[in-house]
Amino acid sequence: MKWKVYLSGEIHTDWREEIVEGCGKLGLPVEFFSAVTDHAASDAAGDVLGEEERGFWRDHKSAKVNAIRTRTLIGKCDVAVIRFGEKYRQWNAAFDAGYCAALGKPYITLHGEDLVHALKEVDGAALAWATRPSQVVEVLRYVVGEWGVGSGKGRKGERLGVCSGREIGN
Amino acid sequence: MKWKVYLSGEIHTDWREEIVEGCGKLGLPVEFFSAVTDHAASDAAGDVLGEEERGFWRDHKSAKVNAIRTRTLIGKCDVAVIRFGEKYRQWNAAFDAGYCAALGKPYITLHGEDLVHALKEVDGAALAWATRPSQVVEVLRYVVGEWGVGSGKGRKGERLGVCSGREIGN
Amino acid sequence: MKWKVYLSGEIHTDWREEIVEGCGKLGLPVEFFSAVTDHAASDAAGDVLGEEERGFWRDHKSAKVNAIRTRTLIGKCDVAVIRFGEKYRQWNAAFDAGYCAALGKPYITLHGEDLVHALKEVDGAALAWATRPSQVVEVLRYVVGEWGVGSGKGRKGERLGVCSGREIGN
Amino acid sequence: MKWKVYLSGEIHTDWREEIVEGCGKLGLPVEFFSAVTDHAASDAAGDVLGEEERGFWRDHKSAKVNAIRTRTLIGKCDVAVIRFGEKYRQWNAAFDAGYCAALGKPYITLHGEDLVHALKEVDGAALAWATRPSQVVEVLRYVVGEWGVGSGKGRKGERLGVCSGREIGN
Amino acid sequence: MKWKVYLSGEIHTDWREEIVEGCGKLGLPVEFFSAVTDHAASDAAGDVLGEEERGFWRDHKSAKVNAIRTRTLIGKCDVAVIRFGEKYRQWNAAFDAGYCAALGKPYITLHGEDLVHALKEVDGAALAWATRPSQVVEVLRYVVGEWGVGSGKGRKGERLGVCSGREIGN
Amino acid sequence: MKWKVYLSGEIHTDWREEIVEGCGKLGLPVEFFSAVTDHAASDAAGDVLGEEERGFWRDHKSAKVNAIRTRTLIGKCDVAVIRFGEKYRQWNAAFDAGYCAALGKPYITLHGEDLVHALKEVDGAALAWATRPSQVVEVLRYVVGEWGVGSGKGRKGERLGVCSGREIGN
Amino acid sequence: MKWKVYLSGEIHTDWREEIVEGCGKLGLPVEFFSAVTDHAASDAAGDVLGEEERGFWRDHKSAKVNAIRTRTLIGKCDVAVIRFGEKYRQWNAAFDAGYCAALGKPYITLHGEDLVHALKEVDGAALAWATRPSQVVEVLRYVVGEWGVGSGKGRKGERLGVCSGREIGN
Amino acid sequence: MKWKVYLSGEIHTDWREEIVEGCGKLGLPVEFFSAVTDHAASDAAGDVLGEEERGFWRDHKSAKVNAIRTRTLIGKCDVAVIRFGEKYRQWNAAFDAGYCAALGKPYITLHGEDLVHALKEVDGAALAWATRPSQVVEVLRYVVGEWGVGSGKGRKGERLGVCSGREIGN
Repeated sequence: MKWKVYLSGEIHTDWREEIVEGCGKLGLPVEFFSAVTDHAASDAAGDVLGEEERGFWRDHKSAKVNAIRTRTLIGKCDVAVIRFGEKYRQWNAAFDAGYCAALGKPYITLHGEDLVHALKEVDGAALAWATRPSQVVEVLRYVVGEWGVGSGKGRKGERLGVCSGREIGN
Repeated sequence: MKWKVYLSGEIHTDWREEIVEGCGKLGLPVEFFSAVTDHAASDAAGDVLGEEERGFWRDHKSAKVNAIRTRTLIGKCDVAVIRFGEKYRQWNAAFDAGYCAALGKPYITLHGEDLVHALKEVDGAALAWATRPSQVVEVLRYVVGEWGVGSGKGRKGERLGVCSGREIGN
Repeated sequence: MKWKVYLSGEIHTDWREEIVEGCGKLGLPVEFFSAVTDHAASDAAGDVLGEEERGFWRDHKSAKVNAIRTRTLIGKCDVAVIRFGEKYRQWNAAFDAGYCAALGKPYITLHGEDLVHALKEVDGAALAWATRPSQVVEVLRYVVGEWGVGSGKGRKGERLGVCSGREIGN
Repeated sequence: MKWKVYLSGEIHTDWREEIVEGCGKLGLPVEFFSAVTDHAASDAAGDVLGEEERGFWRDHKSAKVNAIRTRTLIGKCDVAVIRFGEKYRQWNAAFDAGYCAALGKPYITLHGEDLVHALKEVDGAALAWATRPSQVVEVLRYVVGEWGVGSGKGRKGERLGVCSGREIGN
Repeated sequence: MKWKVYLSGEIHTDWREEIVEGCGKLGLPVEFFSAVTDHAASDAAGDVLGEEERGFWRDHKSAKVNAIRTRTLIGKCDVAVIRFGEKYRQWNAAFDAGYCAALGKPYITLHGEDLVHALKEVDGAALAWATRPSQVVEVLRYVVGEWGVGSGKGRKGERLGVCSGREIGN
Repeated sequence: MKWKVYLSGEIHTDWREEIVEGCGKLGLPVEFFSAVTDHAASDAAGDVLGEEERGFWRDHKSAKVNAIRTRTLIGKCDVAVIRFGEKYRQWNAAFDAGYCAALGKPYITLHGEDLVHALKEVDGAALAWATRPSQVVEVLRYVVGEWGVGSGKGRKGERLGVCSGREIGN
Repeated sequence: MKWKVYLSGEIHTDWREEIVEGCGKLGLPVEFFSAVTDHAASDAAGDVLGEEERGFWRDHKSAKVNAIRTRTLIGKCDVAVIRFGEKYRQWNAAFDAGYCAALGKPYITLHGEDLVHALKEVDGAALAWATRPSQVVEVLRYVVGEWGVGSGKGRKGERLGVCSGREIGN
Repeated sequence: MKWKVYLSGEIHTDWREEIVEGCGKLGLPVEFFSAVTDHAASDAAGDVLGEEERGFWRDHKSAKVNAIRTRTLIGKCDVAVIRFGEKYRQWNAAFDAGYCAALGKPYITLHGEDLVHALKEVDGAALAWATRPSQVVEVLRYVVGEWGVGSGKGRKGERLGVCSGREIGN
């Protein structure tokens, strides 16, 4: 089983790379999904459908085209990581958190200590709060890890048994 | 049928009163729900469960006690109004919007023109965007209104027929 | 128990009145719901939120304001009646039928013999097809009727027993 | 709270009356629902929609009209009682049992000892099996009963407390 | 709106009375539900369906009859309180907690400090942990309370407005 | 995409083989699932868990062990075929039909003309009724078939296009 | 991950080929699904189950056989494209749109400017409206595209990282 | 098809190995999942997110990190085995059982005769109760087994037919 991890939120620092590379070095069975993080491309996502004079409608069309991608990928993911940076309002990140919460989808928040009070509702529904990408990598290593079947003796690295016999279907 | 309307978001201006009073003057069959809007009480919601030294855990406990109220009331409402003011980050409002979106619960956003770009994902999943509380009142008047059954002739004020015969149950 | 009946579709003939009046004369425990059937008001439903130059966006805003009403009422109804007239394309009626089908909500179609082939998918997911409003009234009379509890002897008019003792809750 | 009980199955003996009267004598907060139990009326439920030459289509139309009633009422009930008699195949009763099972709706079967083997799948998903209507009455008396809040001392007849203060909504 | 509160768990101390009476004194709009707390009656719930020689089957039948009540009431409640006492294993209380968690139903745990480690999974999915019934009363007072609509000025005791105009339905 | 087809019902004639072989000859992308059809093994499914003196409990245990298999496989299938033979009551087949209906899972009934009236509720919720296994094969051939993308020109045998480019995940 | 795209609606022009070929040239990870688009075959889908004298029942049987295919494929798709042409009423296309809307399945409408008013409800629930197949291709290219994980620097063509280590399961 | 089996509960004896090895020897198409069974690692699961002074919060953080794993894996499994040992309270095992019950996920309990009364609610919602791991292996062998398609003649070892023709998608 590959775990599907959705990376939501801030697009101005390298946190996505840090998590992806950190998990890659550990060889974790994880694949990552995300909204389109190219800011200009995201804002222009709906332009191919025709130009708009009012900013509201241009944004509206692009937001909906982006939603085709984001709702589908959030719906398929096993766990989300939701990042809030120091700047900007990042309402879409909080929106994604609420969306996950209503679906019962586990998520991890990633933000600094100074945002704790402002994010209390978002953190309150999260299953973990990290301040650094490396912590997220460690949590994922634990969560998706292979552990031996031994009782009380389960050790990381021993695979939980898979009986690969003949199958009756697919 | 009374329509249940949940009022989410900003707590520093009188928008809730404007909507409640506006609907009241029109005699609309609407009742309103909300998170606790007393800021100090909301922050202290979990204190009765024991004091915490770290701010994170005090916030965490209060956020969860508040969630008992807010998730229940959002889950029961027919439509939500989600207000973003000029100040503060209001991530809880965006969280509520995402929560509504995932539940398929209709919501109306209420915010100024200057927030249009920052809120494009939140507006993209909304069924209406208003800039003034009086517009919300007008939308509710239309939405919950009684309209005559006439086809093409339906006029506001004529009730859509109700056949109140005997009932077989409750 | 009052049955909630949603009346969807054509707004140019008197079929809604016929059904409401027919059920009223029989004293059936039914109440009716509908989209706003005043054509001009419906088209203008979003105008209060600001004028639009492009027809698409005016329609879009009005369609969404109408959706606040229609999705809520369809979601609450027990059964829908979906009417297709001779004229116009009435895609909103077919849309409502698909919406009901996906929710597992029973619906009755009401249309002439000449539309049978064009509506085969819509009729295929319906639980009844009627050609005249009076037939819908008869179906509702049967469906919501009180029938005696006798086995093999159940007669209309005898109430299925209700034991109204003390209650432990609401 | 009134409990809603759906009575499904055999229509040739008086079991429905026995349960309804038994619960009535005890003053239980229960109301009963059922398919139309008048055999002839049930078979003719779709006739108003036009005559059919082939028996299959007459049955089909009637079965669907009946389904408007039965699916709605099963969907609303809290518990179902499903009766299998000595005669006839009563596939509709088994169908209702499967329908309840998939919805997670509790049901009680009511049938003689001799049908135990044939009904093993239906009984396997039931929460109780009774052989006499009076047993169903006793089970309902227990299930819907008012019990005092005392711990270890809870006695039937003492109401579990209700705090009826002011309400914030409906 | 009356809030429905389900009281699950330990039946050997007076915690249910304390909560019910505490809420009663405050006039809270709350009603309480519970499994049957009369231990002997609960163990004998299935006896009316016929005697069993093996203890397993007697327990099995009674557990299922009890489940008709408990699953229905947990399914209807808005919030559950789940109590773990010092003695006994109380697996049914933990079972109810897991059941609530999977349904997304908010619950409050009530237990002493010494059980914290053993109950960490159960507490981890709860929205509050209390050690005394009086704390539960305080949490409920806050959660179900009426708060004025004022923004920043919301005060307990001022009702959130209800516009009770004419209704278009029920 | 392979279609998953669940074969439910009668175990005394060769209808399963006919369908499996018929589809096999046509090379259809279909795989079949079923309850255990070895009657003796099915009745004894629970025996490994300990002997029972009463027939009811032996049946009960076996029915539940069988349910682990059948509920899982019905839940995963795309379409079910439900067969009623001339003999026996086959309540488990009708139970499976009701289970499918509540899940919105399409099913095809397979039975003779003489059972039409007795099965009217089961047929009323089906998407097709066949009298011979070869008809089921034909329906499956049509349903799972590859059809060209041409509009109005779509011909069986031309594959609906698949763009197999690089993938962003699994 | 391959995206599953369902193509619904008009069968008289080449729009399906244009989209399939357009995506094929770009090597997008997309596969397409559709109802059977051979008009004559679709109308005759139920004929193998026996001839009908009345047109209504022939259509009914065929519509249901087609529904086995269409409901399953719509249920599995990630996004639908729903095409309305200039001619015919195409109620099945609007039905599919309503079905998608109720499931929360994203869809894109494809139709000319002249149909904007008639389709306002259908467009109101869509996530995009295109007038040409090439626009749909562009939207899909954007939506399913691989974007680098860089923050602010994400470029199309750089794959979002996949850590393909050992797996603990499937 | 590989069956996914989740192994929940006691971590102090070798029951997991016995089941995994037993299924392995039989070549069953089964793969196993579990919470992390290394007691110390599980208790420390949240430590990477920062140290806590109070035991409650350390447990809380670890419980939630563990929940990311357990809820996801329980949600994906086809059947769970829930083990209660002689010692400890094992509330997490009962919690998992309740969680499975609410999701309609089949589970098998594994515990000694002496725990029958204390576990009656947990057993009441289970589909099987075993006292030894070898019985679980036998039940799984039966449940996931390949059985021939023959009617009345179905024999273990004969595969239920799979028609592996061309596919129209994935």
